[in-house]
Amino acid sequence: MIKRMGKYSLKFTEAPIISAFSSVVGKLESRGPLKEGFDKVIYDCHALKDSFEEAESTLQQEALSLALSKWGGNKEDVDFIFAGDLLNQCTASSFALKGFNIPFLGQYGACSTSAQTLIMAAIFAQSNASSVSAAVTSSHFCSAERQFRFPLEYGAVKTPTAQRTVTGSGAFIIEKNKPHYPSISSATIGKIVDFSVKDANNMGAAMAPAAADTLENFFKDSNTTPKDFDAVFTGDLGEVGSKILYELMGEKGFDIRENHKDCGLMIFDRKNQDVQAGGSGCGCGACTLSAHILPKLLKGTYKRVLYMATGALLSSTTSAQGQSIPAIAHLLELNYSK
Amino acid sequence: MIKRMGKYSLKFTEAPIISAFSSVVGKLESRGPLKEGFDKVIYDCHALKDSFEEAESTLQQEALSLALSKWGGNKEDVDFIFAGDLLNQCTASSFALKGFNIPFLGQYGACSTSAQTLIMAAIFAQSNASSVSAAVTSSHFCSAERQFRFPLEYGAVKTPTAQRTVTGSGAFIIEKNKPHYPSISSATIGKIVDFSVKDANNMGAAMAPAAADTLENFFKDSNTTPKDFDAVFTGDLGEVGSKILYELMGEKGFDIRENHKDCGLMIFDRKNQDVQAGGSGCGCGACTLSAHILPKLLKGTYKRVLYMATGALLSSTTSAQGQSIPAIAHLLELNYSK
Repeated sequence: MIKRMGKYSLKFTEAPIISAFSSVVGKLESRGPLKEGFDKVIYDCHALKDSFEEAESTLQQEALSLALSKWGGNKEDVDFIFAGDLLNQCTASSFALKGFNIPFLGQYGACSTSAQTLIMAAIFAQSNASSVSAAVTSSHFCSAERQFRFPLEYGAVKTPTAQRTVTGSGAFIIEKNKPHYPSISSATIGKIVDFSVKDANNMGAAMAPAAADTLENFFKDSNTTPKDFDAVFTGDLGEVGSKILYELMGEKGFDIRENHKDCGLMIFDRKNQDVQAGGSGCGCGACTLSAHILPKLLKGTYKRVLYMATGALLSSTTSAQGQSIPAIAHLLELNYSK
Repeated sequence: MIKRMGKYSLKFTEAPIISAFSSVVGKLESRGPLKEGFDKVIYDCHALKDSFEEAESTLQQEALSLALSKWGGNKEDVDFIFAGDLLNQCTASSFALKGFNIPFLGQYGACSTSAQTLIMAAIFAQSNASSVSAAVTSSHFCSAERQFRFPLEYGAVKTPTAQRTVTGSGAFIIEKNKPHYPSISSATIGKIVDFSVKDANNMGAAMAPAAADTLENFFKDSNTTPKDFDAVFTGDLGEVGSKILYELMGEKGFDIRENHKDCGLMIFDRKNQDVQAGGSGCGCGACTLSAHILPKLLKGTYKRVLYMATGALLSSTTSAQGQSIPAIAHLLELNYSK
């Protein structure tokens, strides 16, 4: 049963499970701190295709195929795919997944899409709308740079607050509750929050207020505090956004410094990899969830964690028109016990 | 309860209702055949804002405000908004709706988003994830032309197979079942279908195969035929796509000619308005649903109809790269009895 928990959150009484997961990344990611956890590396930034955009679709195809293979089922057994990405009109997902022949529900929340797709799949599983769903998201450094900033050939210099879009895709298989799997027990859907940040090279600052809003709503709705969780993961706030989140949460009376971890700071080694304020993109959170968070839950290192992905809801058009950057964050609670 | 019906469809045993709805359109639409049904007309294509993109956001704001006002509740009473549009990164929706302060779930299925948002809201209502949700979609001729084709100032000539993007937004309030309201009793989620059409000026041809696929799946899953419905509405196939749909459905053994109606052919008068093969865009289906279909259900003219919106999942990048146009169609069944 789905129960409303407080004003913004949902509780799944028979928590849907993540029964298989996979991650496929690019070269830089494969040399970062999480290198042991990724399932596959595609070293060529074109993935032997004709364009960066097709390469991004290839990441999604490989990730979903791997997740299905680990799961041990066929694509015909999957009722729905929830997927999204950062490309205009979400074409990385539609071109990647058209060959799978599975009913498709495109989701868009910028980098928060990695959490949004999982939440939707959990709601479908808990409500009997689906038996088995897949959640897939991706980002690609080269397709994102070309679309949102400058073509790589221009050699544009990055500001220190900028973040490096992760080249990667994560795929997850979500099913109705079964024992002995990591489960999604509750979720908080974010509101759009706009603190009037206009610097498109500082997404962390734009997204931190949305993260603080959703996190506060979850703690209040669930009557919990940060200490009730082994870790609180954010998707891609990076160095700048994480610090702002600590301040904002402090003002709200919550100290999350001790057990907060940001996927954007985990996936790259900022000292030795040229990634400015950290990683970003739908692939950042999704690949970290698949390569680190879920394996650590299965090993027993973590038992109860929060995963919250944040998204900057801008386009290059709105930025060029001088608009601010609205942001959003969606959160889910993950549990595991043997 | 949500019951799976066949392989691709869902049955809502306590059918969620559409308890209020509204449409806001531009000048050309206000002079078309459905002029009596629209709630508000914004004659200025800039809506007195600085850009076409902001004008599109204004359409959504006005539509949602009107729907809330007809419904008689406050925005604080709405649990979730499902919204989407055609602009890059769905910014018409995020900029429109940020001020409403309602948890937001961005949906993307190109022009099929009008059906997708309603289906998601129905699933949330039936599963107790929400008591009240809003579904909002929009499109704008000028923002779409600039983004997908050419800036209007170029005066580009249209091909006869092209369709005119509707300037308009439709908003809907969806609640748990109550008697005496139009209800959403079942839905079919579409697969991505790609028939290798590459002509970005002929979306009808690209989308018709997806429409035929979803419609066939619904008829088979529900064990119904076109004659079981007072009308079968498609979102925006236009003249070209509708004819292809008749052929494809004929090959599958279904004759839908008698009771098929296409919103793209209803919203404009093709003889006297320069709209080539008909209307298109998320706003086309949404405004026709609000201005014509739901009022006719309430009047008793229709009792049981299908509403299926189709989307072309391309971007200007994928078209420039010579890719084909994948498409998708989502369908819902609407019922009303006094």
